This record gives sequence, structure tokens and C-alpha cells, in this order.
Amino acid sequence: MANLNGTTSDLRTKFLEVYSVLKSELLNDSAFEWTDNSRRWVERMLDYNVPGGKLNRGLSVIDSYKLLKEGKELTEEEIFLASALGWCIEWLQAYFLVLDDIMDNSHTRRGQPCWFRVPKVGMIAANDGIILRNHIPRILKKHFRDKPYYVDLLDLFNEVEFQTASGQMIDLITTIEGEKDLSKYSLSLHRRIVQYKTAYYSFYIPVACALLMANENLDNHIDVKNILIDMGIYFQVQDDYLDCFGDPERIGKIGTDIEDFKCSWLVVKALELCNEEQKKILFDHYGKEDHADVAKIKALYNELNLQGVFEEYESRSHEKLTTSIKAHPSKAVQAVLKSFLGKIYKRQK
Amino acid sequence: MANLNGTTSDLRTKFLEVYSVLKSELLNDSAFEWTDNSRRWVERMLDYNVPGGKLNRGLSVIDSYKLLKEGKELTEEEIFLASALGWCIEWLQAYFLVLDDIMDNSHTRRGQPCWFRVPKVGMIAANDGIILRNHIPRILKKHFRDKPYYVDLLDLFNEVEFQTASGQMIDLITTIEGEKDLSKYSLSLHRRIVQYKTAYYSFYIPVACALLMANENLDNHIDVKNILIDMGIYFQVQDDYLDCFGDPERIGKIGTDIEDFKCSWLVVKALELCNEEQKKILFDHYGKEDHADVAKIKALYNELNLQGVFEEYESRSHEKLTTSIKAHPSKAVQAVLKSFLGKIYKRQK
Repeated sequence: MANLNGTTSDLRTKFLEVYSVLKSELLNDSAFEWTDNSRRWVERMLDYNVPGGKLNRGLSVIDSYKLLKEGKELTEEEIFLASALGWCIEWLQAYFLVLDDIMDNSHTRRGQPCWFRVPKVGMIAANDGIILRNHIPRILKKHFRDKPYYVDLLDLFNEVEFQTASGQMIDLITTIEGEKDLSKYSLSLHRRIVQYKTAYYSFYIPVACALLMANENLDNHIDVKNILIDMGIYFQVQDDYLDCFGDPERIGKIGTDIEDFKCSWLVVKALELCNEEQKKILFDHYGKEDHADVAKIKALYNELNLQGVFEEYESRSHEKLTTSIKAHPSKAVQAVLKSFLGKIYKRQK
Repeated sequence: MANLNGTTSDLRTKFLEVYSVLKSELLNDSAFEWTDNSRRWVERMLDYNVPGGKLNRGLSVIDSYKLLKEGKELTEEEIFLASALGWCIEWLQAYFLVLDDIMDNSHTRRGQPCWFRVPKVGMIAANDGIILRNHIPRILKKHFRDKPYYVDLLDLFNEVEFQTASGQMIDLITTIEGEKDLSKYSLSLHRRIVQYKTAYYSFYIPVACALLMANENLDNHIDVKNILIDMGIYFQVQDDYLDCFGDPERIGKIGTDIEDFKCSWLVVKALELCNEEQKKILFDHYGKEDHADVAKIKALYNELNLQGVFEEYESRSHEKLTTSIKAHPSKAVQAVLKSFLGKIYKRQK
């Protein structure tokens, strides 16, 4: 996700302090009898996997909560609690990434070897993923057990995790090794994968956490959810676009969606726009490791003017989202949504 | 776990009917937009992994609840709810087994190939494990959201999962590949692994579910928890014993704890009882694949009379547990605990 321009480095520092507090609580959780070895293992595992990302999901809980409070100064406790919820989302993300990297047999993550590739970790990483996941309810219980919205928080994290895992499932079963079949790919499949695999946990849950802290009933905010899901889909389309057309220096990686036979927005659009001859090129060359195959696909994307198609999509999405946001009855909620949209519109990384 | 002698086949049939209901609800969960493919995948995955065990953990929720109700006829709804909680435990078990088999690189489970070894499944099994885990809160939300003990149920499942994963962690990190070191093994490490990895989810949680359904506060039942944990440890010691001395025909598998360098009660006892010369045999031959090495360890176990030591342990444990149970103020709770103990005492499989 793009950098949060609105977040001061001060807030970031505070946020990272909360990580240290939560970590130390988890390493002394009385539900388990620790040994020196196990405490050392978990500490190293947390430091390696949890705080090394851009932290946008986590930080946006505090940002959103502030906006919902309409400029009222937050108390120290409110900042701590919003940060703790933000960290729960970062923990959720770490859990998904550790397990995804095992499933995808990936090599690097956030500029370092994937956790399961670290010497002596190996398949223990799968259990570490589970430990990460289990830390979330530990954090929630310790700090939110007495809040009136505790049960809603538990339900929220459970539902979003279920949706993310379900999105991951359709992604995995449509790309089963040895059954690569481009004719399965469509805009509706793309939307479904993206919505479930990414949008709920990246866009919806940070705002939902802030709403719960502000004592809102999530059932009254279905429209907010829908807007955030649409924003998440738009965000992932950008991601797919940047994977092919972005500057590797700026996005921090060299995209391999074409080689990996990914159900990317680009290939789905290409399938929609191509003629029979071009379709043959897609079927013959998509999902191959060879540089020449990849070059053929990229040439076809250019021929179909996918950059122009994307720009058109980008401005139409922005317009639609802006209209939906303006229709929302609460100015504070509008501010939250606008802030999210502002962070991602026309991002280059 | 040994068969539940007290369970009529009628109850078992009813229990299996509840599985079908829960499965069908999960396959139509409105939190996700299903495709035919994803629905087929999950259904096959559930049928393969969830109902094929002995179902003792699940069935014992109903048994325990009945005993807590002191013979009062259960309503259809009570039977359904107790069964649903029982199935949540079976789902939990399936989730652990699917992921454990990946981590241990196992071959078979319950007489069939491990799920990750089924063609076209492979590493998707890790995500399937996560899906299994996520089904538990879906089932709880659907059927228990309005119960006064809903939040306690969520906390209970969260805590027990955390404890199980933590036990699995100490097991995994003490047996890291390439760092096999018998001097790390001790009775206290064995107790810790077993307590966390097995006892909470096999012995405590079924009774805790029944207590919650009977509107009991779990904080008032720490003694019940402690007795069940002790019973779980005793159960695992039996398991370790049977792995070496049991009849493979009856226990349904050929034990490989010696080959696998497991922190088994037998090796821990052997380390405690051996002289220097015997210790050398343990260090030289434990954890080796070769049949001759295994035979040397087994001969040493016989030399140390571990069968006799086990019998002594078994009767002492039984006595202690019986005394603790009799000290409990509630006759109904006593009956629940006695029933559990009766099912496992002197089991041969």
C-alpha cells in the first residue's frame, strides 16, 4: 500500500512503542508455561515477521478513529487501544504472509528471505503462522474483554479471516499446478478473488475497528463496507497494473504475474478485448518462465493499449468512489473514506 | 482415544446427522460468494478430514452434558447444540492434523493418505487447514450468537487453540532437524509438551463446552480443568507406551517414536533410570531409522523393565485421579470425570 502521507513520524513512533508492549505481554502470557527457548523463538519470529511492513493497515486504524472523533484530542488510552487494534491487523497480515510464502514456495518477502527459508525454521513456520494468528485473540482479550464491543471485535476478526482464507482458496484452486487454463479467467473471477483475498483485510477491517471503538454498530455501516471493498478492488487493480507497468525501483520488486499465470486484471482485460489471433498469443505464451514468452505478452498488452484502458478505469473508479463517499450522511465517515482514497489514487508504488 | 463404551450407536448416528447439517450450512455461508468449484472443493476436503476419526472428543461433549443434567432427558435442541460443539472440537482436531501432517511430512492418517498428499491438493492443504479452523467461529456464530455463554465459548476455543499451538511449538523446536540432542529431554519437558499439545484440546475442552452449555462459569471449575489435564497427561503416557509395547493390530499403526526421536515418556523414563553404560546406548541409537538401532533401544527398555514401570505409573495415576475426583463437591461433575477416566483406564488401543 502507498505510504500514508497523513501519518506523522511521531504517530509511527508511538505505534511502534505499542508493538513492544504487546510483544512483551504475549511473551509472558500466563496461559502457557514458557521456557527460555520458546520465549526466544517467539520473540525472534515476531520481530522477523510482524513489524517489517509498511504498517499502513495498522496505522490507518488510528487515523480513521481520529477522523471519526472529528478532531477531538485522543486520550493516551484511546491511542493505545487504536494502536493495539492496528497491530492485530498487522499480526493478521503476518500470519497470512508466512503461510502464503510456504504455499507459493516464495523466496523473499519485505527484502529478506521468507521466514520458512530461514535456517532451522523450515516447516516450523507453519506452526509459527498459527501462533501469529492466535496472538490476535490474546491481544483482544487482554485489552478489550470489558469493552461493550468485545464480542463484535471477535466476530469481525473471525469473519474477515474466513473471507480472506476463502479468497485465497479460489485463487489457489483456479491455478492448480498442471491445470493452467486461461479460459477460466474472467473479470468476475478476478473481482471475487480480490474482494475476498485482499479487500476485507486491507481496507474494510481497519475502518471497522475504528467504528467499533467509536461505539458504532457495524450493521448500520454496510454502505461503508461496500465503498471500502470497491476501494480495495481498485487498489488491487492498480497493483496488477504496477506489476507489469510500474517502475521496479519504486514498487520495490520485479513483477512476475505473467510468468506466474496470475489471474491479473491485465490478462482478464486482454482476454476481454482481444481478437481470435491475439487470444492465441495469450493462450500460447501466458504463464511461461521464458523471457521471450513474457515479452510477447507485454507486446500484446501494448497493442491492446492496456495502459490507456487502465487510466480510463482509474479515473472512472475515482469518480464513482467519490460520488459514493459524498452520498454518505456522516461528514466524519466521509473524511475517513476520503483519506483512504487520497492515499491510493494514482499511486505509483 | 479408546472407544466410548457408553455411547450408543443411536447417539453416534444422530451426531453424524449434525455433521451433515453443519456442512451444508458452511457450504452456503453468506459471508462468501461461492462458486461450484469452491463448494465442491470444501465439501470434499471436509468429508476427507473431519468425520473419519473415532469422534471421541466430539461425542464426549454430549455424554458430559447429559451427566451434568443428571439424567434429565435432553431436548432435541440440546442434543443438536451439544453435537455442534462436539463437531467444533472435531474440526479443531482436523485443522491440527492437516497442518501437523504437512509439518511432519507424514504419509498416512486414519488409514488413508494425508490430505496434502492427495493429487492436486499439495500445499493448498495449508490453506484448507486454515479454512477448517475458520469454520469453528462460523458454526459458533450461527448457533450460539444469542446464548449468554457465546463470548465464553469464543474465548475458550481461542485459548485452547493457543495452548495447543504453543505445545506444538515446544515439541517442534526441541526436535529441530540436525539438532537432535537427547540431553534436552526430561520428564518436565515431556509433561509440558503433552499438557499443551494434547491435554487441553482432547480432555479439557469437551467438558468445558458441556459446562458452558449448562451455564456454568469456567472460572469456578479450575479443579475440573486440572483433573482433566492430569488425565490427558496420563492418556498420552499410555499412547507413548502403546507406540512401543502395544499390539499394532489393535492400535491401528506401527509405532515409530524411537525412529522419530520423539520426546516419549519411555525415553524420558529410560534416561532417568539408566546407568552410564545404558545412557550411551540411548545416545548412540535413539532416533535412528535402522532396524538394528531400534532393536537396541527396545532391548534396553526391557532391561530397564519399562513395562513394569509403566504399570506402576498407571495404577498410581488411576489412584490419584480417583482421589481427586471423589474430592469434587458436585456428584454430576464427578460422574463426568469418572466416565472419562473409565474410558481410558488400562486401554489397549
